[in-house]
Parts: sequence; C-alpha cells; structure tokens
Amino acid sequence: MSQPLVGIIMGSESDLKIMQEASEILQQLGVEFELTVVSAHRTPQRMMDYAVGAKERGIKVIVAGAGGAAHLPGMVAAITTLPVIGVPIKSSNSIDGWDSVLSILQMPGGVPVATVALNGAKNAGILAAQIIGTHSKPVADKLVEMKKQMREKVENSVREIRIAGYNNEFDS
Amino acid sequence: MSQPLVGIIMGSESDLKIMQEASEILQQLGVEFELTVVSAHRTPQRMMDYAVGAKERGIKVIVAGAGGAAHLPGMVAAITTLPVIGVPIKSSNSIDGWDSVLSILQMPGGVPVATVALNGAKNAGILAAQIIGTHSKPVADKLVEMKKQMREKVENSVREIRIAGYNNEFDS
Amino acid sequence: MSQPLVGIIMGSESDLKIMQEASEILQQLGVEFELTVVSAHRTPQRMMDYAVGAKERGIKVIVAGAGGAAHLPGMVAAITTLPVIGVPIKSSNSIDGWDSVLSILQMPGGVPVATVALNGAKNAGILAAQIIGTHSKPVADKLVEMKKQMREKVENSVREIRIAGYNNEFDS
Amino acid sequence: MSQPLVGIIMGSESDLKIMQEASEILQQLGVEFELTVVSAHRTPQRMMDYAVGAKERGIKVIVAGAGGAAHLPGMVAAITTLPVIGVPIKSSNSIDGWDSVLSILQMPGGVPVATVALNGAKNAGILAAQIIGTHSKPVADKLVEMKKQMREKVENSVREIRIAGYNNEFDS
Amino acid sequence: MSQPLVGIIMGSESDLKIMQEASEILQQLGVEFELTVVSAHRTPQRMMDYAVGAKERGIKVIVAGAGGAAHLPGMVAAITTLPVIGVPIKSSNSIDGWDSVLSILQMPGGVPVATVALNGAKNAGILAAQIIGTHSKPVADKLVEMKKQMREKVENSVREIRIAGYNNEFDS
Amino acid sequence: MSQPLVGIIMGSESDLKIMQEASEILQQLGVEFELTVVSAHRTPQRMMDYAVGAKERGIKVIVAGAGGAAHLPGMVAAITTLPVIGVPIKSSNSIDGWDSVLSILQMPGGVPVATVALNGAKNAGILAAQIIGTHSKPVADKLVEMKKQMREKVENSVREIRIAGYNNEFDS
Amino acid sequence: MSQPLVGIIMGSESDLKIMQEASEILQQLGVEFELTVVSAHRTPQRMMDYAVGAKERGIKVIVAGAGGAAHLPGMVAAITTLPVIGVPIKSSNSIDGWDSVLSILQMPGGVPVATVALNGAKNAGILAAQIIGTHSKPVADKLVEMKKQMREKVENSVREIRIAGYNNEFDS
Amino acid sequence: MSQPLVGIIMGSESDLKIMQEASEILQQLGVEFELTVVSAHRTPQRMMDYAVGAKERGIKVIVAGAGGAAHLPGMVAAITTLPVIGVPIKSSNSIDGWDSVLSILQMPGGVPVATVALNGAKNAGILAAQIIGTHSKPVADKLVEMKKQMREKVENSVREIRIAGYNNEFDS
Repeated sequence: MSQPLVGIIMGSESDLKIMQEASEILQQLGVEFELTVVSAHRTPQRMMDYAVGAKERGIKVIVAGAGGAAHLPGMVAAITTLPVIGVPIKSSNSIDGWDSVLSILQMPGGVPVATVALNGAKNAGILAAQIIGTHSKPVADKLVEMKKQMREKVENSVREIRIAGYNNEFDS
Repeated sequence: MSQPLVGIIMGSESDLKIMQEASEILQQLGVEFELTVVSAHRTPQRMMDYAVGAKERGIKVIVAGAGGAAHLPGMVAAITTLPVIGVPIKSSNSIDGWDSVLSILQMPGGVPVATVALNGAKNAGILAAQIIGTHSKPVADKLVEMKKQMREKVENSVREIRIAGYNNEFDS
Repeated sequence: MSQPLVGIIMGSESDLKIMQEASEILQQLGVEFELTVVSAHRTPQRMMDYAVGAKERGIKVIVAGAGGAAHLPGMVAAITTLPVIGVPIKSSNSIDGWDSVLSILQMPGGVPVATVALNGAKNAGILAAQIIGTHSKPVADKLVEMKKQMREKVENSVREIRIAGYNNEFDS
Repeated sequence: MSQPLVGIIMGSESDLKIMQEASEILQQLGVEFELTVVSAHRTPQRMMDYAVGAKERGIKVIVAGAGGAAHLPGMVAAITTLPVIGVPIKSSNSIDGWDSVLSILQMPGGVPVATVALNGAKNAGILAAQIIGTHSKPVADKLVEMKKQMREKVENSVREIRIAGYNNEFDS
Repeated sequence: MSQPLVGIIMGSESDLKIMQEASEILQQLGVEFELTVVSAHRTPQRMMDYAVGAKERGIKVIVAGAGGAAHLPGMVAAITTLPVIGVPIKSSNSIDGWDSVLSILQMPGGVPVATVALNGAKNAGILAAQIIGTHSKPVADKLVEMKKQMREKVENSVREIRIAGYNNEFDS
Repeated sequence: MSQPLVGIIMGSESDLKIMQEASEILQQLGVEFELTVVSAHRTPQRMMDYAVGAKERGIKVIVAGAGGAAHLPGMVAAITTLPVIGVPIKSSNSIDGWDSVLSILQMPGGVPVATVALNGAKNAGILAAQIIGTHSKPVADKLVEMKKQMREKVENSVREIRIAGYNNEFDS
Repeated sequence: MSQPLVGIIMGSESDLKIMQEASEILQQLGVEFELTVVSAHRTPQRMMDYAVGAKERGIKVIVAGAGGAAHLPGMVAAITTLPVIGVPIKSSNSIDGWDSVLSILQMPGGVPVATVALNGAKNAGILAAQIIGTHSKPVADKLVEMKKQMREKVENSVREIRIAGYNNEFDS
Repeated sequence: MSQPLVGIIMGSESDLKIMQEASEILQQLGVEFELTVVSAHRTPQRMMDYAVGAKERGIKVIVAGAGGAAHLPGMVAAITTLPVIGVPIKSSNSIDGWDSVLSILQMPGGVPVATVALNGAKNAGILAAQIIGTHSKPVADKLVEMKKQMREKVENSVREIRIAGYNNEFDS
C-alpha cells in the first residue's frame, strides 16, 4: 500500500459503522487512506501525537468523526494546520445529534473544522477526495465520473417511475 | 497568598467579564484560587500542561469557562482526575448559547464535567466552594451563612412589596 | 457497611435502570453510598427532610436524578449546602430530554447544580468520586487507574481495527 | 380589603414587572388577591409554608411565576391540591425562555401546573378569574364584558385601517 | 348520570387513547364529565356551537386535546369564558410535539389556555377536578386522598429498593 | 390523458412513498398531474430545464418534495414564476425534519415557496387543487365535497365514541 | 376600485407594519386586494363570516398573518376552500418566532395552509399574485418582469463590488 | 494580479460585511482570490455558469456564503467537483441562524459542503488556505505562523490578567 493521504480517525470503535462509509468512498475514488481510533477524551496524548505528526507523515487531510460533546475534530484542528473534516455522529448518548453537530461546527475564529451533515461520513470522504483532487487529475476525474453516475441514477429512477405508471410529460 | 485550591481558567480574555463572578464569590467564601487564560484551541499544549500538573500543584477543583464549540472543560476533564466544573458562555459567536451548553454538558461516559447554567460563573464558584467545603469547616460555614443571606434578601423583598401596597395575608 | 458518603436519590423507581449506573461505578471506585427514591413532586416533605439532614448524617455529595420538569436536584440544592449532582433523565414523558436538561441545568445564581449529560448517571457517580477523591487518596488513585483502563480500551480498539484490515501508518 | 381568593407569588422581586399584569387584570375583574415573593430556591421553607396553608387561608387559586429552572409553580403544586397556574418568565438568565417554559409545563402525571404563555401573567390572572368565575356570577359577567371589549377593540382597528386608506369590501 | 361538569373534547378519534386518561381520572375523582370529538379544522361550526353553549349547559371546565398545529383549545377559549385546559398531543404528524405544545401554550393576552405537559391528559383531568374542587368539598377531599396515595406509592418504592439490596441510611 | 396542470417532482425515488399522497388526492379531485424525479443536487441541469419550461408546457402549479438540506422547491421557485408548493420530507438523513422544514420555508424576499407541513404531501395536493380551483368550477366543487366528507367523518367518530359508552350531552 | 381578488387579513393592527409588505407588492403587481383586521381569538364570529363569504364575494386567495399561537390562517383554511397563505409573524409575545411558524405550518391532512417564511409578508403577496397569475396574463407578465429586476439588482451589486476593488475574474 | 485560486461568492451584497473576513484572511495568508455576488435565487443561471466554469478558470476552492434558506453553497457543490466551503450567515430574515446552518450543512450523500460556524467567514478563508496549503509550501508556512501568533496572543492575555492582579501559580 502506498502512502496514505487521508487520515480517518474516530472517537470510539462504535463509530466505525458510520465512519467506514468514508473509507469505502475513498477506496472507490482511488485515494489512499489510513483509519484508526483516536479518542480526545480517553487518549488525549494519542490525539496530540496523531495531530502533531500527521503533516510530517504525509497526511494531507484528516477526517474525524465523533458524537455527543464531540471534541476530536476541533482539537485536532487546534493542533495541526492540515484541513480537518468533522463528521458529527448521532451516537446513543446524543440529544438527537444536536450536541454532535454544534460541538463540531461552532469552532472559534482561527480554527476551522469543515463540518459535514450528521452521520455524513460518505460526504466527508468525498470532500477529502475533492481536496486531494485539487492537485491530482486522476482523483479529480473520478469525482467527475461519480457525479455522472449520480445523474444517471436519477435518470434511472425517472424511467422506473414512468414504468410504474406515473404520467410525465416533461420527459416524453 | 496561600496555595490556590481552585483553578479558574477560560478560553479567552473576553470571557473574563463573566468568569470574574466565579473569582468574586470564591473570594467572598474564603477559598484561595488562581485565574488565567488557557485556550484549548489556541494553546492546546498549555492546556495539556495545566491539566496534567494541576493536582500536583495542590489544585482541588478546576473551573473552566468557554463558549461556542466549547472544548476546554471537557478536554481538561479528559486529562486530570480532579473534578472539573464547566461554565458555558454565551459568547458573540454562539448560537443563543446552545452550542456552549451542549458541547460542555454532553460528555461521554467516563469523563464527567460538572456543568452549570449558561453564563453561570457565580454558581461555578459556589460549587467549587461546596466541594472544598466537604472537607473545610470554615468554607462550609460560609456557605451556610451565604444561604441565610439569600433568604434574608427574599424577606426584604417581601417587605418592600408590602410597602409598595400589595396585599399579602400570608405574612400578616 | 461503613458510613455512606454519597447519597443517590431519584424521583421515581422507574429511574433506577439509569441511576444504578451511578451506584455501580461508585462501588467500583470504592466509595460508600446510599440509594433511595425521593420525589420532589410526590413526597416534598421527605425531600425536605432528606436534604436538611444529609450533611449531619455524614453525606458529602448528593446525586439526584429526575426527568421531565425535573425539580429534585435543584430543590435539594436549595436546601443543603452540600454539592448536588443532577442527572437529567430522558423519561417517557420527556420532550427528547430537553425539559430534563434545562430544568436541572438552568439554576439561578446562588444555587448551583452540577449537571451531567442526559442519562449520564455513570458520570454523576464518577464526579461524586472525584469530589470524594479531593480528600481521599485511595479514591483518587482508583480514578487514576480507571482513566488508565479507559486508555487501554482505546488501544485495544486500535488493535482490533488493524486486525480487521484497516491500514494505519500512525501506529506502525 | 376582603379575603383574597387568588395568591400571586413569584420567585424574585425582579419578576414583579411581569407579574403585576396578573394583579392588574384581577383588580379589573373584581377578584381579591394577595401578592408576594416566595422563592423555591432561596426560601424553600417559606414556599412549603405558603403552599401548605393556602387552602386553609381561603385561597382558591395560586398563580406562580418564575424563570430559568423554574421550580416554584411545580413545587407549590406538589404540596397543595389547589389549582396552580404557572407563568414562565423570560428572565435574564434564561435561554430564550425555553428553560422557563419546559420546567413549568412538563410536570409528571399526578401534579398538574396550568401553564400559560411565556411572560403571560395577564392570561394567568384571567385564568384565575375564570376559575373563580365558575362559581361567582359577578366575576363571570365581568369576563363576558372583557371579551366584548376585546371584540370592540378589533372593530376599532378595522375602522382605523379603513380610514388609513386600505380597501375592505367585507365590511362595506 | 348527572349533569357533566367537565367537557372533554379532542380533535380526532385517534386522540382518544391519550385523552381517555383524563376521563379515567375524573371518574376516579368523582367528577361528572362528557367526552366527544370536536375538530377545529374539520368541524369549525360544531366547535363554535360546542363552545358557545357549554356554559349554558352547565359545563364548568373544558378539557381540549389536539396535536400538530393544535388550534382547538385556543379557539374554544376564544369563544367561551369558561376555563379551558389544553392537552398538547404528540400525534403522528407532529414535529416531536413542539408544534402541539407551542400552538396551545402561546396564546395572546386576553385568551388563556391552561396548558399541561405533552400527552398530559391525566393531569388535565386532575386540574379540571381541582377547579371543580375549589367549590366542592367531596372532590377536594378526593384530591387530598389521591395526593396521599401518590406519597404512599413512593414509600412503597423505597421499601422495594431496600429489599433489592440498596443501602439507605436515611430511612433506617 | 389530458394536459397535466400540476407537476409533482421530488428529489429522490425514495420520496415517492410520501409524495404519492399528493398524486392520489389530485386524482381524487380530478386534477391532471405529472410526476417524476428531479434532483437539485444530482441533476441540476434537469431541474433548470424542468423549471424553465414548465409554464410553456401548460403546468400551472409545481409541487416539489425534498428532505434534509432541501433545495429543490426553492431553486425551482427561483427559476419559474409559477406558484411552487414545497413539501418538507423527514428523510433518513434529516435532523427530526427541522432541516427539511427550514430550508424550504425560509426563502428570501422575492422568491416564495408555499410550504406545507412536514411530510404533508396530501395537503400539497389539496393546495394545488385549490389553486386550480380558483378558475375551475368542477375542481372547486370537488373541494367543497371533500370538506363535507371530512366533516362527516368527524360526525361518524362522534357516534362511535357514544356507542363506546362515553357520555356526551352536547349531541343528545 | 375594482373587485379585490386577494383578501389580506391579520390578527392585530400591530401586525400591519409587517403585513403591509403584502399589500405593497400586490399593488406593484397590479392585483386588486382588500386588507383588514380579523382576529381568530378576539373576533371568532367575524373570522367565520369572513371565511364563509370570501369565495362568494369574489376573493380568490386569502393571505392571513398572525403571531404566537397563530390560529387565524389555519382556522380560515378550515372554513373556506380557497387557497390560504399564512404569514408567521415574530410578534412581541413569540418565542423567537417558532410558535408562529409551527402553529401555521403544521396543519393536519385535509386543511393546507401555504406557509411562507417568518415575517415573509412580501412573499405572501407574490405567492398570491402567482396564483392569480395562473389565469391572468398581465399579472403573470409582471411577475416575469419582477424576476428580471431582481436579477438586474444582483448584476448591479456585482458592478458595485468590482468598483469597490474586489477582483472577479468570472465577470471580466 | 495573478490567477485567483479561491472564489468567494455570496448571495447578496448585504452579506459582504461578513464575507469580507474571508477575503481579508486570504490576503494575509497570501492566497489569490476573487470575490463577487452570485445569487442562487435571483440569478440561478449566473450561479450555474459560475459553478460550471470555475474549475476550468483555475479556481481550486469555492467559498460560498448565504443566509436563511441558504441554497447557494449546496447548489454550487451540486454542479462542480471542486471543494465548496459554506458559510451560514445570520441574516435579518433568519430564525436565529438555524435555517442558514441546516440548509447548508445537511447535504445529501454525494454532494458535500464543508460547513463552518455561523458567520464563520474568517474560518472559511483559513480552511480554503489550508486546502491550498496541502500543495503550497508558502501558504502552509503562513498557516503555521498564524497558529503561532494565535498562541502568542493568548500568552499576552495571560500576562495582562496577571498584571490586572489575578493570582496564577501555574505560570509563576
């Protein structure tokens, strides 16, 4: 495996069922990544070490997922100057996800976290690929291809719904 | 000045106008404290150092105030085993204070933060004193005295309102 | 059994399935506690009596859990000068837990309640132990040990995820 | 002055500017009332005494206003079997009034509080009069008269707006 | 059956599973009631007729339950001068109950609705009985008895929890 | 089939289970419609084309349903001058529907979207028919008939509840 | 003046400062309207009469604005089969506008209200004109012209910002 | 001026007072940018053209700010494969900013928007620079320097607070 460009981290192993969507889309888009657990609250020193060394190790973007009072994305962004993408996770101890969203999104001036939708790990992966794609034509091309497939999936739905009997003068 | 028992920290100098209410009430209750700025997002290493060494230096309770995506109280609680009291601050970049409240309150299992009301720095100071008071009779006695004064202030209001002309058969 | 230092109370027997997490962690941390039902709304006099006498009986910290319009923690804090930890419970009659959280957290100046996360009874227990631990080396040591175990649990997750096939250059 | 039928209480003298609207409307509707400060958090024993004795003293309805973690209405309702009307007050320490509303409204089964709108002290007074009016023809008649005046005020607005030049075929 | 004193109405037959709790507690407290469906949105004229005639027919209190954009309680209160108790119902088309609560609670000055907790039909029934009880000693006595039973239920829980093995020095 | 007057569009095939309620009620009310998938985010050009040409093709009203960050209704309204009805859908990626509601409702001045309740596709269909009915007597008559049936359904509930044994003096 | 096609009503004269934006835009778009005060809560019979007779009088669309527990739009929609546009108003007694929005938007199946943004009276006027425009070429043309002017206003901003010194390669 | 790498766009000229913070920080960090107004709702074709051509023109990152039902960032992200950073703006027609935040953040799978805090234009600029900095050493170095200055600003606050007389054993 070649050098990972994206570092995917999450606060708990239980977040993996959401966060693996980030790894799957990165794999599909041909972007090398690494993935592990780094807990801000249970392993603060590990978090420091991960964030301090990431740029040196060749990481270009960090994707960090966490739930509840979700401090991991913001704390990693406090330490590194790499772009950090935050994934608010609607974990079991969350109040409908509002805590996860607000504690990742509402970072103070100077320390941005690129926040995606609640449980939006797939979009975090795509966003990481878009960042890599700003300087990688193969990745940029795969993103264009992915957009085309999304359009085709809608066109397929259009056909299915017509077959199901719904009138649609627009496409006729 | 003798050894501070309570460490008051805040994410930004602009939080001082709220957080000084904690120091004022501690002074009134005869509890030694220290007060400084420790920013989770701008000085993460300083935060680590402060939290790691606090117990050794004789600090018994940490009061931490922060606003927006407020990570300071939770991160300090991640590092130390001292009780940490969190003060959510309704700073200018906050969404009506909800972000401050939720990112301090909703800590995961294992890492508690004793959260007080939005902008509740005075109560954070009293809570710190209550903790010190569990093993200090002078402080415990001052807390009893403070409660008495609160009651007397209500009794004074009762008199004022009667004088203002409002009927009140209960107190007659 | 020796003198309980922590009094765990709750508004209803139905809260026990949440609140027993507080008792379990206190047991694990070697802190003596008592546990019973005290309802602010159904047994206000019992609540008064409990709160008035707690300090005299040797209780150092009170942990109070309640849901909906949750008045128990705040009312106990109104009566005693001991530190009171409030556990908002997402009971069946609660609006997503917001009522429980706000009616415990938003206490007026002078009467703090140390609020923990929604359903955060485990953290309430740990916080109570941290308060006891400010003056008990055995309890303080157990808290340090517990933190170490939390870190080791993460390290174990790191290993499991690597074994599951996820690349992770940081730990290699 | 004859026997007060409605007891108006509030948690703090600062609530008077809102709560006096209850007293004004009761005066206008010819219902005898008393008004004083009773703080759940600063004078819990006074609150107990007030609530325990109210029925004996001839009070028929209690109107209780409070803000933030507003426990006064619910605690009074816990003690007395009289109808208790709660007025959530948007006090300075409130999160946009949500805390006041939810901690008064969301009472558990068995202990109702008749909650009115945020800062709705005038409506609390009217509701108290409606309760008195169920067994007092003079009060009931004044309520009918007040409704008529409200209708006439709208009719006056209708005229003013026509005079201001707005077309209105409905009333022509 | 004698003259109903309380009129229980609801916007839809599907609300009956919640609203029957009001009828059950009224039955238990010995208060005569009637119960039917009156929809503000589907039968506005029926609503007008019901509200206009209720006082004449001997009704003393109206309990109205509705969900979503819940206009029934407020509209009935607009027409009659009887006290109207509103029960916000968390119906299937409701946004977590917030719409039901706010559209019943937030009535303008002049037209109060005595709002109870979300799905709080039982409390609506008790509140209606409390209003009746202001002028009926048998009902008032039953309310006192009910409060006593609530206290005894807690005392029973206290015993059960001790038997389950939880230490409790307070009651020993 | 004759010329469709209402164009029903939705952001994803998965929205069909909600949006088909719009088509069913339009069918019942005798209004010709077409129905298809048009995604703002996956087929922006298709959305442009649909909105640009709708008026020319004889469409009078557009009903657009979407969830999460729901941009379809507002973007279609940005392009066409036809009335656009927006249906916020509580999709799986939505935060309790709040995102869907707010991103459809809160359009800036100049570009209205006629927003209906969360998942209110049936009401969107009725509203579309009401707009058609402003200039079609057959449709207007069917709307009157539908209102009558809604009233009768309530009257039926009234009977059922009486048969179930609930007293109801109003209807006797 | 010719026959009004749009009836603008509001719950209180104090709503006029918001609602006049609806009348201004209708005037600009050449749509005849009437405007008056109709209060659901203070003049329920007037509201009934207005809604019952509107269609007969030639009204095609009703625009209804109200704040707090805003029942006017929904109740008018309950009575008439005309399209009803609801304007939630952030009045002084509103909780940040949430009550106004939810009590207008969340109508039950069968009784739609076309809700616009908080304080969105201008958009309500445009929406009414769009409905009229479905069968009036002059109005439809004016809507197209208005859209053109909105575009030109943006183009003007583009020029102003360039003049202010901001680089913009897109328009160069 | 050399080729802009970052395109800053906003829905309205009135957003400039917030969005210029993005341009100022980019200037400070030595990143070329362009800035203009592009309205999703008033100039949808201009938005299409801007988004379609941005990559070809050499833009690497788009920063888009908008308020209320904020569709600009998401719609641009629907068209381009470049990373899009969204700035929710608390505009005058916004409900406390919640609409702006949710309609930018909650994008569906496949179309990410890198959302920053409410009014967080400065952080949007820094995030854009971080993305550029993944492949530009001068920009990356300036980001490291900026972080150092942030730390020094805190250290300065520490000194000021000591001078103001607050004890602080940690730094002594």
